[in-house]
Amino acid sequence: MKILLINGPNLNLLGTREPEIYGKKTLDDIEKELTKFAQQNNINLECFQSNHEGEIVDKIQDSVSIIQGILINAGAFTHTSISIRDALIGSKIPFVELHISNIFSREEFRKESFLTDKAIGIISGFGISSYSLALDGIIKYLQNN
Amino acid sequence: MKILLINGPNLNLLGTREPEIYGKKTLDDIEKELTKFAQQNNINLECFQSNHEGEIVDKIQDSVSIIQGILINAGAFTHTSISIRDALIGSKIPFVELHISNIFSREEFRKESFLTDKAIGIISGFGISSYSLALDGIIKYLQNN
Amino acid sequence: MKILLINGPNLNLLGTREPEIYGKKTLDDIEKELTKFAQQNNINLECFQSNHEGEIVDKIQDSVSIIQGILINAGAFTHTSISIRDALIGSKIPFVELHISNIFSREEFRKESFLTDKAIGIISGFGISSYSLALDGIIKYLQNN
Amino acid sequence: MKILLINGPNLNLLGTREPEIYGKKTLDDIEKELTKFAQQNNINLECFQSNHEGEIVDKIQDSVSIIQGILINAGAFTHTSISIRDALIGSKIPFVELHISNIFSREEFRKESFLTDKAIGIISGFGISSYSLALDGIIKYLQNN
Amino acid sequence: MKILLINGPNLNLLGTREPEIYGKKTLDDIEKELTKFAQQNNINLECFQSNHEGEIVDKIQDSVSIIQGILINAGAFTHTSISIRDALIGSKIPFVELHISNIFSREEFRKESFLTDKAIGIISGFGISSYSLALDGIIKYLQNN
Amino acid sequence: MKILLINGPNLNLLGTREPEIYGKKTLDDIEKELTKFAQQNNINLECFQSNHEGEIVDKIQDSVSIIQGILINAGAFTHTSISIRDALIGSKIPFVELHISNIFSREEFRKESFLTDKAIGIISGFGISSYSLALDGIIKYLQNN
Amino acid sequence: MKILLINGPNLNLLGTREPEIYGKKTLDDIEKELTKFAQQNNINLECFQSNHEGEIVDKIQDSVSIIQGILINAGAFTHTSISIRDALIGSKIPFVELHISNIFSREEFRKESFLTDKAIGIISGFGISSYSLALDGIIKYLQNN
Amino acid sequence: MKILLINGPNLNLLGTREPEIYGKKTLDDIEKELTKFAQQNNINLECFQSNHEGEIVDKIQDSVSIIQGILINAGAFTHTSISIRDALIGSKIPFVELHISNIFSREEFRKESFLTDKAIGIISGFGISSYSLALDGIIKYLQNN
Amino acid sequence: MKILLINGPNLNLLGTREPEIYGKKTLDDIEKELTKFAQQNNINLECFQSNHEGEIVDKIQDSVSIIQGILINAGAFTHTSISIRDALIGSKIPFVELHISNIFSREEFRKESFLTDKAIGIISGFGISSYSLALDGIIKYLQNN
Amino acid sequence: MKILLINGPNLNLLGTREPEIYGKKTLDDIEKELTKFAQQNNINLECFQSNHEGEIVDKIQDSVSIIQGILINAGAFTHTSISIRDALIGSKIPFVELHISNIFSREEFRKESFLTDKAIGIISGFGISSYSLALDGIIKYLQNN
Amino acid sequence: MKILLINGPNLNLLGTREPEIYGKKTLDDIEKELTKFAQQNNINLECFQSNHEGEIVDKIQDSVSIIQGILINAGAFTHTSISIRDALIGSKIPFVELHISNIFSREEFRKESFLTDKAIGIISGFGISSYSLALDGIIKYLQNN
Amino acid sequence: MKILLINGPNLNLLGTREPEIYGKKTLDDIEKELTKFAQQNNINLECFQSNHEGEIVDKIQDSVSIIQGILINAGAFTHTSISIRDALIGSKIPFVELHISNIFSREEFRKESFLTDKAIGIISGFGISSYSLALDGIIKYLQNN
Repeated sequence: MKILLINGPNLNLLGTREPEIYGKKTLDDIEKELTKFAQQNNINLECFQSNHEGEIVDKIQDSVSIIQGILINAGAFTHTSISIRDALIGSKIPFVELHISNIFSREEFRKESFLTDKAIGIISGFGISSYSLALDGIIKYLQNN
Repeated sequence: MKILLINGPNLNLLGTREPEIYGKKTLDDIEKELTKFAQQNNINLECFQSNHEGEIVDKIQDSVSIIQGILINAGAFTHTSISIRDALIGSKIPFVELHISNIFSREEFRKESFLTDKAIGIISGFGISSYSLALDGIIKYLQNN
Repeated sequence: MKILLINGPNLNLLGTREPEIYGKKTLDDIEKELTKFAQQNNINLECFQSNHEGEIVDKIQDSVSIIQGILINAGAFTHTSISIRDALIGSKIPFVELHISNIFSREEFRKESFLTDKAIGIISGFGISSYSLALDGIIKYLQNN
Repeated sequence: MKILLINGPNLNLLGTREPEIYGKKTLDDIEKELTKFAQQNNINLECFQSNHEGEIVDKIQDSVSIIQGILINAGAFTHTSISIRDALIGSKIPFVELHISNIFSREEFRKESFLTDKAIGIISGFGISSYSLALDGIIKYLQNN
Repeated sequence: MKILLINGPNLNLLGTREPEIYGKKTLDDIEKELTKFAQQNNINLECFQSNHEGEIVDKIQDSVSIIQGILINAGAFTHTSISIRDALIGSKIPFVELHISNIFSREEFRKESFLTDKAIGIISGFGISSYSLALDGIIKYLQNN
Repeated sequence: MKILLINGPNLNLLGTREPEIYGKKTLDDIEKELTKFAQQNNINLECFQSNHEGEIVDKIQDSVSIIQGILINAGAFTHTSISIRDALIGSKIPFVELHISNIFSREEFRKESFLTDKAIGIISGFGISSYSLALDGIIKYLQNN
Repeated sequence: MKILLINGPNLNLLGTREPEIYGKKTLDDIEKELTKFAQQNNINLECFQSNHEGEIVDKIQDSVSIIQGILINAGAFTHTSISIRDALIGSKIPFVELHISNIFSREEFRKESFLTDKAIGIISGFGISSYSLALDGIIKYLQNN
Repeated sequence: MKILLINGPNLNLLGTREPEIYGKKTLDDIEKELTKFAQQNNINLECFQSNHEGEIVDKIQDSVSIIQGILINAGAFTHTSISIRDALIGSKIPFVELHISNIFSREEFRKESFLTDKAIGIISGFGISSYSLALDGIIKYLQNN
Repeated sequence: MKILLINGPNLNLLGTREPEIYGKKTLDDIEKELTKFAQQNNINLECFQSNHEGEIVDKIQDSVSIIQGILINAGAFTHTSISIRDALIGSKIPFVELHISNIFSREEFRKESFLTDKAIGIISGFGISSYSLALDGIIKYLQNN
Repeated sequence: MKILLINGPNLNLLGTREPEIYGKKTLDDIEKELTKFAQQNNINLECFQSNHEGEIVDKIQDSVSIIQGILINAGAFTHTSISIRDALIGSKIPFVELHISNIFSREEFRKESFLTDKAIGIISGFGISSYSLALDGIIKYLQNN
Repeated sequence: MKILLINGPNLNLLGTREPEIYGKKTLDDIEKELTKFAQQNNINLECFQSNHEGEIVDKIQDSVSIIQGILINAGAFTHTSISIRDALIGSKIPFVELHISNIFSREEFRKESFLTDKAIGIISGFGISSYSLALDGIIKYLQNN
Repeated sequence: MKILLINGPNLNLLGTREPEIYGKKTLDDIEKELTKFAQQNNINLECFQSNHEGEIVDKIQDSVSIIQGILINAGAFTHTSISIRDALIGSKIPFVELHISNIFSREEFRKESFLTDKAIGIISGFGISSYSLALDGIIKYLQNN
């Protein structure tokens, strides 16, 4: 079983800025820990990050019949990209939407998501723990479906 | 460490209706499994369910200085109860908002929550797995704060 | 065949106030007349009133597999209670929404109902005659379905 | 006592289409049954249908001092015709608004009615039984006023 | 002359939390002071608090012909309870709406009140002094009407 | 201690029109009574009225370091003057917003106020008693802050 | 010079109903007086009334190159008929929109007009005097353009 | 009989700017012509213009028991001044709202008026002829009331 | 195969007005050309135009089991007629919505259509070529379905 | 004459997914057929697809003075890309907006387009026939302009 | 060349309050510096401040044919004064709208301006440097137009 | 000190199109002039343009600790890119938002900006002079902070 983790724009800088808020773990650290946790569950985790909407669409398209589940922290694209929404729907791959911060306690425009109603579930606000919760969530989903 | 699980209106009927959708596990089953999982983490889990808004407010008020974290699936009250919101804020106990179904792919009025912006995190859509994910989430939160 | 009549908050005072508007019939009078009319149709009518949202939810939950149809004048809860909506949907018992006054010619907020789109029908504005019309309506519905 | 039944656009086709949904009774059948029911109550029922808004306005104008009550299923005109509203108000004849289907569980634009706030009552959703309920409702109204 | 003071949900905790903001006076202290002030004006003050909407409705219903004026700090119910609104209107007892904090400088949803347009007056923002101002206000109102 | 009472447009006519509604007391009467009440509390009350927005702004600017508290019945300017709002904020003088009538039971546009969220408190609906309640309110505020 | 007066739905009943409000003059009386006033200004006035939107459109279409100005009291069609708007624009005949009552002090939906922004002017609220004012207005317009 | 003509901000410049649009007549010319026309109807016309909202309010207040009717072209204040609205209502003097241009075919914000719903009538769009039409309208109104 | 072309209000004047914009072809010319093009595809084209909403509804009702596809340029009725929408849905005949001009670059209210979501397709903006494109479109649709 | 066909994100997968809905034709098949059809009309068709908004903007910029007309199925970018809108306007090349599905019968957010009001025409809902209709439409447009 | 600087309400207090935020420069200091900077560009700068909307309108009217450009920091009037908007448009003098603070990061109501769409440009947020930038901007504008 | 100038989509074509509106200066010309002006102030100006949102995000990320201030004309991305907003906030580099045209006098959707509330200032409408004003503005800002 193979799962794809997608991180959207600006998430490549995790850990290098505002460590007092987001902690000192870089995206690389997070990806490594998550990969290890996946392996313990006999899951192959592929990690992908891009600041380019088109590259994320390309990546989702390329995942069909290779990937069984997607974890996506689309960052700013959550609120603006119908294109990623369409790619996810078109791929028919179940996905979990996750956010590090609680998007409901920030600016008004972050409350609207083009992904949520099509996600199997949403996890938001647990800091970098959101990643492992999301991975756990999709594993449980795939085991039951 | 003691954690309180609150289930709101109509959740007492879990497992007895529409088993093809929600599965055959009753609320009692869920609470037992969750309690066991909590014990493995040296956590004392208290479970509470009510169809009465006032009783939930009373319960939250009584939890101060006894409870370190709250998991709340407020059901319909999520979208209508400022009273529970105020009780949670007043208690200063960190809480996780959870939902069995994906509330963002249902009726329009279920997209508004009086709890979310004050929750440490939200988990929605993972079926009854939302409960264990939420418990895991609050444990991780309490360990880091 | 057994039908349940639910009256929501403040309807217990029918007939005791503003008789020039609502007439002199008390809720008790209405319930008796309706029960008699039901019996003539070989229907067992159970009557229930509460000012407490939670009690109405409890009552609906307890009606499953006992009651074949519900008449509900939810009063103020019509416009505020998603909890009663969920209980009614969960019970799968067909229900008629009724109102004594014409709710569409009153305050703006009374035009929104959390029940209507799930009701088999709505009757509003016929004074206390709304009760017998509603009973007649659900009988006809149950005979045809 | 004379009562007028007005059916608006497309209701002339009742019974000839989608019998699995609306039943096999034609508008003619409904009008006959309703006329018989009216006669049993010593009421003279006049039936009128038109696809033309102007003809309905003409008919209402002609009813003054001849008709004591109006039953109107204005169909699509419910949501678009201020002209019929004005004719009804101008006639000072009490009227009941009725609908075969539950207009609150259909398209958003069917939730607005130009008639409702001026009707003595509304009945919606009981299939063709809505007609007899409406007739019963206006009879009760006229007896009490 | 008898006046009823109603306090809604979470107000039972006044003085026990955040004393730096709300002061150290408990609800009991406030009620005692207010009762004394009332007695000086030959008024019998009855005090009532509940976290349950239904109990507040019951209390208002029971006040008819016993109570000449109501002071109500409905807390969260201010913004959600049409049921309490209906009970107050139905009782025909003049009432003053009061709030400890300035509800207009808090969350957007606290700006809407189901009570205000039917109150004789509103007092908001004076801390616990809002109670004595409200009592003074209703006394002046009752003396002039 | 010196307090300023500001009355906005059209309030100079109090008592001369519609005495059956507003009573026979003129603005002059009100100001005299209030001044006397203030003196009993060792407060110097200055009274000011204008139909000109600019003059009210000038007056507030001139009050800095002279006046300790402001009572303002801004009348129509309540809903239209950001300029007075800015002057009040800029002055850093605590102020109470007051209204003779209940502004929440009048036209829709009177529900919006440019002052309220910056006021220490609001008093509305007590007739001319609103003035003395407001004065009492600001005295209590100044004593506690 | 020839001017066309168009009256929309329900205006044929002027003078026969509610004479205490609208006066005793019938539409026929008004048309005769207006025709006389027109003749004094060497204007040929044609009068037309219909309850049918389509007939009004037909009439406007037939007026091209025959009529120099239109007075239209479209009644209810003012707020619902884009078809009449299009006919008027297409005809390129200057027109005055008139209303007997003040449409801005009635129901909310009467504040929107599909005609106003294309009219040379609007006259509303002067009772039946609105007709002669409108005729006077279009004469002045035609003399100056 | 005495009538007051009020012109609001920027209307003092009529005739001096954009004569190709508004014509070459100055406000002075208009006032003189209108005065003559008034005299022919045995009416004393007083003319007043101000760019200051407060002065217009003062003027209206001073008109009570001297003036029988007001013609007001409030210009920009039409859309922003609740203060003038209150002065007009308080004066109980019937008034006509008039505009030179068609305010409904200009910017969106010019469609809202704080005066219209309280005016006896509105005249808009007839160029400077709007003044004489308005005068004619109020004369007819005063003759009939 | 028989196809019906419906043209709504004011389209009977095509070609006779503003030829510099819409060209010199009359509706008759267009209908003839379209009929010829239809014949080349072995299709019988029936043409119908009316300024009366009711007549269009009648026509659609009469088309059932005679007509296989409808082309409709409903003109102004596009934005106001739920009655035509209902007739089209009720007829179960597939239809194409067409417009000569680009309705999305005109007045705001022309952006809403009561037909579009039920049409098999929409064509807008190609001048009179919209007719032949629509005919081509429905032929292709009928060949594939 | 040279025409450019632009396909936006996710349209590269046409024909490879959900063939029961979209048919088995791939984007390549469609482009080939369309090219052949273009050649029959002596038109050189260039085909371009990208999942990257920026690449589409680049392509449009590069088309100036080379391309006479654009067919664009912008997919998800239709509703989110002001950048493509600006590029199209800046290029001054006439364009047709096309969609395979009927965008008006899908999610609410697909009803808004940043392109439509600047397109010469729109074609939506004809399946892959939308492409040939659009090509036909722009050819007719270019022949007439 | 002569340029007019207009400062609206409360800006006369610049530098005397909250120097830690706005700096210690008074309006007088700013005007002097700006005048010097203007002189270096051979421009005569006139400075004007008022808390009275009417005085600002008067001033703009008096500037016609004397002033070539206006810099206006209308303060609170930016968001409420259509009267100043009309005066500026009527004067045909090009103007720059400027603000000391960033009005887009303050209260919601400060985002709407009645001036902006008619200004040649807007400068907001640069502290008192906004003044010199605005002066520089209008000089550049006047040199190029 | 180093400052980065970012130009968004379609701005690479400045000067090559519509020279009668935007002038004949190309983006290259503007960048050169601005660079020279920067050098006179001892500032190193780096210029960057892209039609690709992702590239602009990359560029901003790469600027941290190299660049002291950013001038950004994000063009269409101003209104659609939360991604660029997040990059700018994350970078903690102060930035000025600038526009060549007055974005407040164009389409409605151009009035919303995802950048403005986080910018130190905004400059809009001065043609290509907006660039030098923005540079001047940020220099003044950096000197004072």
